[in-house]
Amino acid sequence: MPGSHFPPDAWIVGVDLGGTNIAIGALQADGSREVAFHSEPTLAVEGPEAVTERIVKAVERTITRVQQETGATRAQFVGVGIGAPGPLDRARGVVITAPNLGWTDWPLREKVHAATGLHATLDNDANCATLGEWWLGAARGTRNAIGITIGTGIGGGIVIDGQLYHGASDVAGEIGHVTIDSTGRRCKCGNYGCLEAYASGPAIAERAREAMWGEEPGVLWRLVEGDVSRITAQMVYAASKQGDPIAIDVVRETARYLGAGIGALLNVLNPEVVVLAGGVVNAGESLFQPLRAEVKRRAFRPAVEACRIMPGALGGSAGVVGAVAAFLQQTRGLDPA
Amino acid sequence: MPGSHFPPDAWIVGVDLGGTNIAIGALQADGSREVAFHSEPTLAVEGPEAVTERIVKAVERTITRVQQETGATRAQFVGVGIGAPGPLDRARGVVITAPNLGWTDWPLREKVHAATGLHATLDNDANCATLGEWWLGAARGTRNAIGITIGTGIGGGIVIDGQLYHGASDVAGEIGHVTIDSTGRRCKCGNYGCLEAYASGPAIAERAREAMWGEEPGVLWRLVEGDVSRITAQMVYAASKQGDPIAIDVVRETARYLGAGIGALLNVLNPEVVVLAGGVVNAGESLFQPLRAEVKRRAFRPAVEACRIMPGALGGSAGVVGAVAAFLQQTRGLDPA
Repeated sequence: MPGSHFPPDAWIVGVDLGGTNIAIGALQADGSREVAFHSEPTLAVEGPEAVTERIVKAVERTITRVQQETGATRAQFVGVGIGAPGPLDRARGVVITAPNLGWTDWPLREKVHAATGLHATLDNDANCATLGEWWLGAARGTRNAIGITIGTGIGGGIVIDGQLYHGASDVAGEIGHVTIDSTGRRCKCGNYGCLEAYASGPAIAERAREAMWGEEPGVLWRLVEGDVSRITAQMVYAASKQGDPIAIDVVRETARYLGAGIGALLNVLNPEVVVLAGGVVNAGESLFQPLRAEVKRRAFRPAVEACRIMPGALGGSAGVVGAVAAFLQQTRGLDPA
Repeated sequence: MPGSHFPPDAWIVGVDLGGTNIAIGALQADGSREVAFHSEPTLAVEGPEAVTERIVKAVERTITRVQQETGATRAQFVGVGIGAPGPLDRARGVVITAPNLGWTDWPLREKVHAATGLHATLDNDANCATLGEWWLGAARGTRNAIGITIGTGIGGGIVIDGQLYHGASDVAGEIGHVTIDSTGRRCKCGNYGCLEAYASGPAIAERAREAMWGEEPGVLWRLVEGDVSRITAQMVYAASKQGDPIAIDVVRETARYLGAGIGALLNVLNPEVVVLAGGVVNAGESLFQPLRAEVKRRAFRPAVEACRIMPGALGGSAGVVGAVAAFLQQTRGLDPA
């Protein structure tokens, strides 16, 4: 990593804290080796103390496994990078609110530091996933990149000149909350017509439910066994691949919404690459082909020509890789001792 | 200017080339003195050779005036910064297309350099206006700023970490082409529902014309002497200040559109300041008050709290000041000799 002050054989543990699972693993500072990647349930209902303890134990187990597998010493472990849902106060290392975890003002970074004795950093989970794809994944070798993770919500991150861009108060990169239609669907954030209100996993399922109303039963009906409340975005992608016309329409419509949002981002940020991650990637070219066509119709030509739009390369480990990369960027110039 | 390698008493000439006027002036490298600011007609119909010759003569006259007023020597003039309508190829110093000028692939930077013997740089006019406000105007002292200039079109610029952000192919900052309504008004750029299609000067006039249809004649009618085709955005602001209900509605609606676009930008870029320039500033608090309220309704709270939204402080000279600032940034590290 450019600017890392750590020796290449230093190890950093990465933690990607989600509402359902904690993903964890360790990387060498030069990105050349990944060891002990795994995940375990978050069990958020047990509260922040218990979850933090679980993270600390997982960090210690990861260190032990790396030592066993590589012969590394404990002294070679220079820190822990943590990605967590936001909003965060990065400077203080505090999770301000995380609805999926039920946390408020939780000083996660200090807790992990105190329990492990290791330097720790905290950054937004979607920022970390973007930085991971930039460091070792689909956006490798670029200076300016946008990452978009589509799941229950739509998260995002922006890399500018090879650095995560955080903005004035760590909000930057909320790609899910660009506007598609300023008088359109209400978004959970309180705004109207955000991309997330149209193209998140639940929004895709919702649009499929709406589209099935009064239509002939098809593949989607069989997948949900007649209970439309069970529809998920993954079922829509699967049904689309099996030729279900309603699902195909919903995927195309999703591509148009994403294309409108990404087109606007190309006009504003003119990135070299937009990396899409999350379940939506499973839709494959049936999504990416119309998405690229929509962006081409909407954005300025020199911006379209300069930009690749592609699926992430790291899958579920992007957040862990990126948490390590964020640690390296945040501690640049920090004495690793 | 941070990072300038020029002595503080070096002089740079700034040129802001527009479709109607060429604004020009000279600044000292430390921004402490401005001399010989003036403007003259572009006369674009005479073609690129004639306009370029007019620029070169204006540069020489500006240098002479500075020498007369300050006793500076010719050797103290280290270069010319030029702001021009885009799209541009900054690396080659070429205006790729400028519809308002009727130019295609015009190597403006080299022409000016060859004729004056001075280093020259070229950047987008809206980028320069933003950088000018950042250097010596309303965005002074910030790291991350967005500038929006509302006129015939809506131009914009982005300053990140105190540097103009250009993106992969010099398109970045096309703030006029963020989406308000992806199935809405057709924009001149080919896209649908761009901010520019709702809130540019001509779009404001067009909405006023639409709103007057079938309504009682009021202040606006008197201003245009019954000929609605003569409405301009400036008349709408004036009528609004005189209490014309239609004009007041149009200004409020403009504030809502701008608020939707700026709200989305706050979620993505989380700037410290958004500076608005152009005729729209004449609408004063009747625009800014509802605009700030709309942004507050739409964007994430920590982004709203971190950001001031305000009129530019430099008026028509922002582009000239910024062209000089862009020269200083582009030539950082260049030997000024």
